[in-house]
Amino acid sequence: MNIDYMSRALELAKEGIGYTNPNPLVGAVIVKDNRIIGEGYHKVYGSHHAEINAFLNANEDVKDATMYINLEPCSHHGKTPPCTKTIIEKGIKKVIIGLKDPNPIVSGRGVQTLEEAGIEVVIGILEEEGKKLNEIFIKYITTKFPFVIMKTAMTLDGKIATYTNESKWITGELSRKYVHELRHRVTGIMVGIGTVLADDPSLTTRLEDSKCCDPIRIIVDSSAQIPLEAKVLNLESDAGTIIAVTEKANKEKIKMLEKKGAEVIVTPSKEGRVDLSLLMKKLGKRNIDSILLEGGSELNYAALEEGIVDKVNVFIAPKIIGGNTAKTPIGGQGKAYIREAIELERLDFHRFGEDIMVEAYIRKKGG
Amino acid sequence: MNIDYMSRALELAKEGIGYTNPNPLVGAVIVKDNRIIGEGYHKVYGSHHAEINAFLNANEDVKDATMYINLEPCSHHGKTPPCTKTIIEKGIKKVIIGLKDPNPIVSGRGVQTLEEAGIEVVIGILEEEGKKLNEIFIKYITTKFPFVIMKTAMTLDGKIATYTNESKWITGELSRKYVHELRHRVTGIMVGIGTVLADDPSLTTRLEDSKCCDPIRIIVDSSAQIPLEAKVLNLESDAGTIIAVTEKANKEKIKMLEKKGAEVIVTPSKEGRVDLSLLMKKLGKRNIDSILLEGGSELNYAALEEGIVDKVNVFIAPKIIGGNTAKTPIGGQGKAYIREAIELERLDFHRFGEDIMVEAYIRKKGG
Repeated sequence: MNIDYMSRALELAKEGIGYTNPNPLVGAVIVKDNRIIGEGYHKVYGSHHAEINAFLNANEDVKDATMYINLEPCSHHGKTPPCTKTIIEKGIKKVIIGLKDPNPIVSGRGVQTLEEAGIEVVIGILEEEGKKLNEIFIKYITTKFPFVIMKTAMTLDGKIATYTNESKWITGELSRKYVHELRHRVTGIMVGIGTVLADDPSLTTRLEDSKCCDPIRIIVDSSAQIPLEAKVLNLESDAGTIIAVTEKANKEKIKMLEKKGAEVIVTPSKEGRVDLSLLMKKLGKRNIDSILLEGGSELNYAALEEGIVDKVNVFIAPKIIGGNTAKTPIGGQGKAYIREAIELERLDFHRFGEDIMVEAYIRKKGG
Repeated sequence: MNIDYMSRALELAKEGIGYTNPNPLVGAVIVKDNRIIGEGYHKVYGSHHAEINAFLNANEDVKDATMYINLEPCSHHGKTPPCTKTIIEKGIKKVIIGLKDPNPIVSGRGVQTLEEAGIEVVIGILEEEGKKLNEIFIKYITTKFPFVIMKTAMTLDGKIATYTNESKWITGELSRKYVHELRHRVTGIMVGIGTVLADDPSLTTRLEDSKCCDPIRIIVDSSAQIPLEAKVLNLESDAGTIIAVTEKANKEKIKMLEKKGAEVIVTPSKEGRVDLSLLMKKLGKRNIDSILLEGGSELNYAALEEGIVDKVNVFIAPKIIGGNTAKTPIGGQGKAYIREAIELERLDFHRFGEDIMVEAYIRKKGG
C-alpha cells in the first residue's frame, strides 16, 4: 500500500469537478509492480465510473494488480453496471479504498462483495481528504438536502458595500475568478431579490477554459417582485432559473414568470418570507446537490438562522471603508448575545492576490 | 559573513521588547573562528547599548573578531558614550550591520567612523526583518509622531459587539493574551470616552512573566465627560493617564482631573472633536513613540481619516452574530466609494487558538 497512489486517485477525481453532480468525485489508479498501469476518473454524470475508465486506460494485463479508489466501488446496478463485478472479473488482487460509501443504504456492500470474492480490501486511506473532496456528495446522499456554501466578499472592516451601496469591486480579480470556479463546482446559485433589483446579475459561470455548466439560478423572491426584463430571466444558458416565492405572491405574476421559462417554486409564507428549509428540500428533490449562496446581508442571515448553510467562504479585501450604515455580510436582527453566536470550525485560509479567503464550516448544534 | 548570526542578533534584540522605548531594539553578536564569543542586547532605555553588553559578555579576546549588529552603531554621545569608539578600541576587524540608522541626522556616520578606522563594514543584512522589528523606532525617529497600531476584534461577519452591545468575549483566550503582549510592546494605549463609559477598563498590561511597564493610558474625551471614579483615574500603575480634551471642555472638570493625577492635554476643537494629529504631535513630544489604539468604531474611523494609523491588527473570531445595527470595527460616515477606500498592504496572518489575526499596514498615499 502506497499512500501516493491514493493522492493520485484524489487528484484524478478532482478533474470531474463541476461535471459529476449529484454523483461523487471519484478517481481510480491500477498499480502493478509499483507502477501505475491504468488510471481513470468519473468524468461526467451518467458516464463510466472511475474504475471502468481505469480499466479502459490500462496498458497491460491488470490481473493480480492493486486498485486505489477514493470511494468504495458500487455494488448495485444504477445508470451503469456495478463496478465490483468488473473488478472481480478483471482479477484484481487487492483494493485500497479512501472512504466507505457514505450512502447508508449501500455503505459497506461493495467491500463485502469484493471480500466474498477473495479480494483483499483496505479502507480509510486519506479519508479526511476524501471526505472534504466529496463533502457535497456526502451531505446530499445522506440528507437529500443540498450542501450550501455561503460566499461573501468584504473589506477588512466587515463591509460588503459603501454606505452609498457601491460594492463593485471590493475584492480583486483573482478572488472574482475563483468565485466563478465555485459557481462551476455547484449545481445551483442562489441570491435574494434585493441583489437582482440592485445589480441585475447574470449569475453565469465565466471561466476561460470551460464552456460547460452554468449553475441553476435560484432567486429567493417572496412576493415575486422580479422584473420580467431581469437578466436571469432573459439569458442564453445551459441551465434554468428558479424563482422561489411564497403562496402570497401574485398568481398572475407567477404565470408570467413561467411563460418566460422560469420555474416557480411556491412555499408557505414563514414570517412573510420563503420557507428556506422547505425550499432546500424541494431543490434537493430536483437533484440539486449543492448551492452557492451569494446573498445580501438579509438572505444570508435568514439562511444561517434557518440552519441551511454548511460552509462559508469569506473573501477579505485589503481595504477599509468604514461607515455605520454600510452593509455587512450578515444582517437581520442578529444575535443578542455572544453565547448565541453561530460557531464556525475548521477555519482555513487562502490568498487570492492581495485578498484573503477564510473558509470555515458551520458547527452543527450538538456536533 | 553568515546570515545566521544576524538572525541571532535580531532574536537577542527582541528580548528588549517593551523596555527600550523610545530607543530601538538592538542585538549584537561577536564572532571569531565561526563561533559566537560574545552577545548582548539593549535591555532597557538608558542602559548599555547592545554592542557594549556583547563586549561585557565576551568570554575571550575579541581582537580581530567580526561583530553582527541589527542597527548601525551610534557615533554620538547620548546617554552613553558612542559605540563606534568602543568597537574601534576593542580591535574588531569587521562589522556586519542589518540596517543603517534611520535617523537622518546621524545615518551613515557610524559606518563612516568605523571605515575611517580601517574596519570593514557590510550593510543591509536581513534588512527587511530589521525594519519590521524596529518599525516603531523608524517612524518615531524620522517624524517624532508615535507609531499607531489599531487593534480590533471582530466576528467573521465584521461585528465588534452584538446589537445589544455585548462584546465580551468575541475572541478567545490566546488572542486576548496576545493583546496584553501588544500593550507591553507600546508606550501608550488609547481609547475613546465611549469605551470608558461602556466598559470602564483598566487598560493595564496583565502578563504573567512581566511586572513592568503598563502603557500610558490616553483617553480621547473631547468634552471631558470621564467620571472621576473611572478605573483609569484610580488605579495603581507605573504609568500615568492622559485625558485629551478640546478647548471647549469644562475648565473646572479639567482641574478636577488634574487633581486626580491625570495629565490633561487640550487641543483646539476640530469639528467638535479632539484634533488627533495635533494630539499625536504632543504625545510624540512626551517621548511616546508608539500607541496601541483600542478604539470603538467612531474613534477608529476618526483616527484613520486623520491618517495617524500605521498598522492594523484585526483579530477575527470563528463566530457569526449578524445584526444590521451591530457595531463594526470602523464606523463613522464611511467612504462613499470603493475607490476612496483606505488601502492596506503587506497583509499577514497568524492563528491564536481558533482565532485568526490579520496584520496589515496602511498604504500611505503616494507610497
